[in-house]
Amino acid sequence: MKTIAINLAGGEEIFALNDRGLAYGDGVFETILIHAGKPVWWDQHWQRLINGAGRLKISVPNENIVRKACEKFLEGHQDNVLKIILTRGVGGRGYAVPVNPEPRIVLSLHDVPLRNNAPVQLRWCDTRLARQPLLAGIKHLNRLEQVLARSEWNDGSVFDGLMCDTENNVVCATSANIFAKIQGQWLTPPVDQAGIAGIARAWVMKQWPQVQEAHLSRLQMQQAEAIFICNAVRGILAVNRLGENTFPSVHRDILHLQNQLTMEQPGFAVGEGSGK
Amino acid sequence: MKTIAINLAGGEEIFALNDRGLAYGDGVFETILIHAGKPVWWDQHWQRLINGAGRLKISVPNENIVRKACEKFLEGHQDNVLKIILTRGVGGRGYAVPVNPEPRIVLSLHDVPLRNNAPVQLRWCDTRLARQPLLAGIKHLNRLEQVLARSEWNDGSVFDGLMCDTENNVVCATSANIFAKIQGQWLTPPVDQAGIAGIARAWVMKQWPQVQEAHLSRLQMQQAEAIFICNAVRGILAVNRLGENTFPSVHRDILHLQNQLTMEQPGFAVGEGSGK
Repeated sequence: MKTIAINLAGGEEIFALNDRGLAYGDGVFETILIHAGKPVWWDQHWQRLINGAGRLKISVPNENIVRKACEKFLEGHQDNVLKIILTRGVGGRGYAVPVNPEPRIVLSLHDVPLRNNAPVQLRWCDTRLARQPLLAGIKHLNRLEQVLARSEWNDGSVFDGLMCDTENNVVCATSANIFAKIQGQWLTPPVDQAGIAGIARAWVMKQWPQVQEAHLSRLQMQQAEAIFICNAVRGILAVNRLGENTFPSVHRDILHLQNQLTMEQPGFAVGEGSGK
Repeated sequence: MKTIAINLAGGEEIFALNDRGLAYGDGVFETILIHAGKPVWWDQHWQRLINGAGRLKISVPNENIVRKACEKFLEGHQDNVLKIILTRGVGGRGYAVPVNPEPRIVLSLHDVPLRNNAPVQLRWCDTRLARQPLLAGIKHLNRLEQVLARSEWNDGSVFDGLMCDTENNVVCATSANIFAKIQGQWLTPPVDQAGIAGIARAWVMKQWPQVQEAHLSRLQMQQAEAIFICNAVRGILAVNRLGENTFPSVHRDILHLQNQLTMEQPGFAVGEGSGK
């Protein structure tokens, strides 16, 4: 795995052990699909990164500097996942933000599995998401709930786990948003109390203006006609099993949406990915 | 500020940028008062560290190795604060815990202000703590709520801010536990839904077996006869103002408790601290 830490002037530097990203999870991140050497949905990822930074009152870096640093970092790489972490930078002991914080960026490059878009199996997680409107929606570095949820299973046939919040509303999978067709209507849970406002989720809602945000119970999910999950690295994946419930055939709406996505972003086509 | 990253064999190493402590806040920490070159309440801090690691299913390091690394790190230092961060170690992209995680330790040494034990002023924070029993009580690295709460004020005369959870129960200050005398009874909020089970809090409850855990409202706090906050670095501090409410004289129970603490742990005596 390739990694680099840079300052906001784009210069490489040693990551400081008193960085608040480590001390408090004081930062945000993005994981970006790289296809044919180019970031997919860069504008959307960048927008979410600066929205998240804004919510946490972290100074927003210059897009051109970060973009150039990413391009240099990506040289010679074709199909990968680029992870960008933005932290508030170093600080003293204590939660108070330094008077002149100097945010830092950490880049890392990861493999992207060979894409087959096969339907996936989900389980129900016991770990509940706390309801925290101040942090909901953004992709911040406080991810212990997801770590705990993902540690609930080792079964390789389970692709992801579906999480509810502490009031038993369905929210998302540990690393993807979820959509369900219920009584003829595609629905997705709101992400104003927990969960992340996914880039792929926003893409789906733009393609399908008829999708509605709705509170969904476990029972409703079990009675759904069709379910899919999505994120900006995996694209759109039909769900063929959720806990005890099976969905034998891939719903035509999902197939249609996958085709639309592939046409718009060829990096999501079957057979793409580094295969490592 | 002095910092070092070590592996669980006690060897110094470069902090990896793909450490899960940075990626997800996947770890725990302790801030330990160092007085006359020795850690104060080491056993209690160590116990909480391994309890927290256990809750997160992070492998517990060998106490002797960590203790020796800390002693070496502290050589030549008398009055400081030692911060120990334990992370799950490096990982790939994704929340799944590596098959053989190798936890890492980061040590840092900080100044401790000259101690005067003067009463302090608190404000009410608007930032609410989410209710998450899976993470409550332990000192994990997901601290964005505290960062947001602490960023609510710049007024140097305000020492700390009091936080409620999303159901409006009083929980704690951003960096201290709280006790209030109400209708003749000392009370402190439970920390089973939010907040940290402080080392100083446990010391107080051991000294005063009559203290009760109780849900406290903002109104109850405003009607309290006396209030103090405590943590393992600052000791016990009387509160002379909470928002609009003042508490002009330090209650004799608090003075008595401060004396007890100083007798047991001279590092908390007035005039101690590095003064930097």
